[in-house]
Order: sequence, then structure tokens, then C-alpha cells
Amino acid sequence: MRLLVLGAAGMLGGKLVERLARDPLIGAERISEMLLVDVVPVQSGAAGEVGVETLVADIAEPGVAEDLLSGRPEVIFDLAAVVSGEAEVDLEKGYRVNLDGTRRLLDAARPSGRSYRPRLVFSSSIAVFGPPFPDVIGDECDTTPATSYGTQKAVAELLLSDYTRRGFLDGIGIRLPTICVRPGRPNRAASGFFSSIIREPLNGETAVLPVPRDVRHWFASPRAAVQFLLHAATLESREIGQQRSLTMPGVSATVAMEIDALRRAAGDEVVSLIRSEPDEAIAHMVAGWPRCFDTRRASQLGFRAEGNFDEIVRVYIDDELGGVIGAASG
Amino acid sequence: MRLLVLGAAGMLGGKLVERLARDPLIGAERISEMLLVDVVPVQSGAAGEVGVETLVADIAEPGVAEDLLSGRPEVIFDLAAVVSGEAEVDLEKGYRVNLDGTRRLLDAARPSGRSYRPRLVFSSSIAVFGPPFPDVIGDECDTTPATSYGTQKAVAELLLSDYTRRGFLDGIGIRLPTICVRPGRPNRAASGFFSSIIREPLNGETAVLPVPRDVRHWFASPRAAVQFLLHAATLESREIGQQRSLTMPGVSATVAMEIDALRRAAGDEVVSLIRSEPDEAIAHMVAGWPRCFDTRRASQLGFRAEGNFDEIVRVYIDDELGGVIGAASG
Repeated sequence: MRLLVLGAAGMLGGKLVERLARDPLIGAERISEMLLVDVVPVQSGAAGEVGVETLVADIAEPGVAEDLLSGRPEVIFDLAAVVSGEAEVDLEKGYRVNLDGTRRLLDAARPSGRSYRPRLVFSSSIAVFGPPFPDVIGDECDTTPATSYGTQKAVAELLLSDYTRRGFLDGIGIRLPTICVRPGRPNRAASGFFSSIIREPLNGETAVLPVPRDVRHWFASPRAAVQFLLHAATLESREIGQQRSLTMPGVSATVAMEIDALRRAAGDEVVSLIRSEPDEAIAHMVAGWPRCFDTRRASQLGFRAEGNFDEIVRVYIDDELGGVIGAASG
Repeated sequence: MRLLVLGAAGMLGGKLVERLARDPLIGAERISEMLLVDVVPVQSGAAGEVGVETLVADIAEPGVAEDLLSGRPEVIFDLAAVVSGEAEVDLEKGYRVNLDGTRRLLDAARPSGRSYRPRLVFSSSIAVFGPPFPDVIGDECDTTPATSYGTQKAVAELLLSDYTRRGFLDGIGIRLPTICVRPGRPNRAASGFFSSIIREPLNGETAVLPVPRDVRHWFASPRAAVQFLLHAATLESREIGQQRSLTMPGVSATVAMEIDALRRAAGDEVVSLIRSEPDEAIAHMVAGWPRCFDTRRASQLGFRAEGNFDEIVRVYIDDELGGVIGAASG
């Protein structure tokens, strides 16, 4: 099986590639080749039996998508995106990459018709939903994005369904929860604090909490997200139905629940590294984010996330800290 | 007030222009200039105090939208579209006109920023909804189009909301019901029979009914549709809210209800001109169309359609036949 990964240099792309290098299977199918693409160089850790090629390329440029599909990969993971904050600041870049880039990829699959119908796993986002929200957002909720990023993802979802219906490809869009705990250094994303209030204390560093503790949001671990991608690659097309995008399961947790889970895992001293510094601007943004979903469709199709925030903390400790809590835990 | 009408040579565009030529007001504002644009020559009946210019141009071509907006029209009616059947047969044309054309228009309003924010009235369609339908489709129903045309309209709606939110223009999308009774000759649209079973008998000609009489659909007259456009042009922006597209009110009627209304208006002899000729293909398509809506948001904003199908028949007789039923009525 030939694989194409777009956005392979990102956090999620890196974790997906790492998993596939370690265990080169998608369902029961063995991977023979992987083409890893990003706009920045991809550090590939893959080796062994799998032929790995890396390429620096921009899917939004004319002709690039056609080239990438010329090897007829059976499965494509499209994780390439301009993130929410940047898409809001730089309108043209967001539309160019998130809308036009995805459309170029879809269009590149058209000329071959039904003789080549790759499975395209598209990383969408819960940002396709916008306020006012019901208490629990169901699978039939209308997509009314409140950001340009969410708009671009919602548009791509519509195109994915139409192109799949017309038989050009076999698409599935997975609406990812906020990934938590993100490894690495703090970034400037407005949602960054959800991860940093767990990650930094576990690494013996202070973390800033800019919102009240009753703020609630929807989370899954990086490990769960990789599982979503792999599971989406193996589903039977007819099981997915006409609407090709699904909200992924997750954990609905408040900041207080996050902190309680951290306390149970690492104790009071670690929790004491969290400093409240209210930030009106961040609090205002976060107030417009979804809090809880009923992801019945995805659950019926076998997608699984963590069951509670304790498990999310445990995944970070196991996968990023080798199971050991750092210096601050003593 | 300067006006731009895109798609001015179409049925609805023609009726809008005719109304504005007769009564050059939008709300309380007097129209000074109208620029009427289509890909085919526009036959303008306008005259008098209003300066009318007509232009053959394709909004989907680069640079055209910028030129059209250079005169800074305060109100733009965007009625230009490749219709449903054609968008399904010719994928590239549908996407080029219905998606790229609309996007070029939206993008053309960007550079001027907040110094120029035209009201853009965008003609969307109930085709943004797809099966399975609830019995009554509410304002919060998800847009899950089952056709490429519906997909293109749903995408344009998303862009309209995002560009309005960002302050580039002041958009409103109106999801038109199936317009009935369409004047003129029968066309090849799958929905054509809804109009022809009224129109042809009233003109003393036979009409073919390809579906069972219990088929139900959502209708408004051409007169109501022109009123939707004019009313949409006058609404206060803040009244519309974040979601800029609204399902328009209409009449939910079965074919049997259409025929009963025709009988009440014109008698049994006229009704006898309808011949049942079941067409499986048409019946199958129509089974995937919406039947009934709860258009609370639009009603609260003052949009009004006919109250029943008798009124829809009456509008045709009044507006197209000069109030007199033709030869077959005797």
C-alpha cells in the first residue's frame, strides 16, 4: 500500500509517521511506500521495509497536487493547514492553503475517474461549529463557523462530500477535538493554555492560566488523534454514508477537571506551578468555543477517544515523559 | 443609490429590473443608476430617471468583478448562476461560475476595507439541504447538499458569512424556494413540471405530469421572489445576525394541491389538459427534494410569500396573462 502524508512535519503528522514507521500497517494492509510532504523539511524517523521519500512542496501551488498523486497512493492523509490564529490574521494565506490547497488536491483526483479512487482522510476541526451552541452538539448540528479557519474547513468538508458522491475519490473528514496535551514548547495559539497548564508543571515549569476554571472544552490526546486517522483510513466507504465528515469523540472537561486530573497524577506541588493571570481577550475567544459533543455517528463507526482527563494526562506522561514525572514531582 | 444586478438576463433578474424600472425605489431610497450584467445580452426595459447601463460580462473571469465594483454600487443583487441540472452535468462550469464567480465578487469588495461595504443580496437555494429530511426543516438544519449545485451554494453562503463578519461587505443570502409558476416555455429542468402543469393548461396546452400526485415541495411565486430580493436589500445588517443566509418562506404543496388550485381558478376542462406520464428518473430525483420548511427567522425579519397555492396560481394569471385565462378556459 502506497501512502501520501500532507503536513507530515506538523505535530500530528510527525506522530502518525512515527507510528507507521514502528508498525507499517493500516488495518491489515502493509505499507510499501510513504511520501511525506510539507512546506518545511520533514524529519523522517522511518526506516526498515518501508520506502520513505520526503518532499518540500506547497499543495496550494498549481501542478503540485497532480505530481503528488501521479504515484497513485491508495491512502492520503491531508493534515496540511494554516492554523486558526494565522488564518484569522492572514486571510489570503488561510484561504489559499486551507481552501484552495484542499481543492487542488480534490481536483487532482478527478481526471482518472473511477479507475483510481484514493481514500482521502481529511483533518477537519470542531471549529466548523460556531455559537450559539446547544449544551451538547449533536451530529446533525449545522456548521456555522465563527472564524475564517472554521469557514475554510467547513467549505473543504462540503467539497469532500460532493467529490466523493461523484466518485472522484473516497473521502472522510474527521473533525478533531482540541489536541491535549500537545508536546513541545508553549505556542502562541489561544488554545495553548489547555495543554501548557498540564505540560509545563509536569516538566517542573510554571504555566499561566488566562481563563476561569469553569471554562469547558472538548479534548483528545495526540495518541487518540493518530488512532482516529488510522481508523478513518480503514473504514468501508459505504459505512460512512453521504455526509463524509464526522465529529470525533473526546473528553468534555473544565479547566478545574484538568487541574484535578493533574493533581491525582502528580500531586499538589506540581499543581502549584499553575498561576492564574486572567486575560480578557483569551477568555472572550474561548467563550465562543464548543464545550461538549454527542458523537454518536463516530462512536458507532468505532472511533474511540479517552474516557476522562486522567487518561489524557497519563498519555502525555507515558508517550512524552517515558512514564516518569519530571524533577518537579518530588 | 447605485445598483448592480448580476444575472440580469435571467427570469428573476428580468422581473427585478422590470419592477425597478417601474418603481425605482429600494425601501425609501431612490435608484440613480443601474448596471445590468449577464453572460448574454440584457434586454433592458428600464428608462426614465434611472440611468441604465447593460454589459455582457462573466463574473468568473479575472478582473471582471473589480471592474464591476469600481463604480461602488451600494446594492448588488447576485443572481448569476449555473442552474442545478447543468451544474450536475458540467462539474467545471458549475464550480467556475457558482463558486469561483461568487468568490471573485466577494474578493473584489475586500481591498476598500470598511470605507466601502456594499449590501450584497446573494440568491441561494433550498438545494443547500439534502436528504434525509425532517418532516419540517427548521432554520438550524444542517446544510448537507445532495448535488454539486447545492454544494456550490452552501460554500458561497459560508464565504458570505465570513466576509461579512470580517467587514468587507454586508451580505445576505436568501435561499429561494422553487419558483412557481415560472413564465415562458417549458424548460428541461427536472422541476419544470411543477410550473408546466399550471402554465400550459392555462394557455390551452397539454402538460405532462411525471410524478405521483402526493409529491410535496416548497414554492413561491416570481412576484414573491422579487419581493424577497428587495426586502433583503433594505434590512439592517445587525438584524440579520452572524449567519447571513436565510431560508425564504413559501407554500408547501403537493401536486394534488396544485391541481385543485388550478381547478378552482380555471375549471375541470383546463385541469383535463394534464396527462400523467410517470417518469421513474424524475420521480427518483424529486424524492430527494425538501418538502416543507419552518422559516421562522425569515418571517420575523418580514419576508412574506403566498399563503397557499391558489394565490400562486392567481399571481401567474395576473402577472403573465393580464388577469385573463386563455382560450382553453371556455
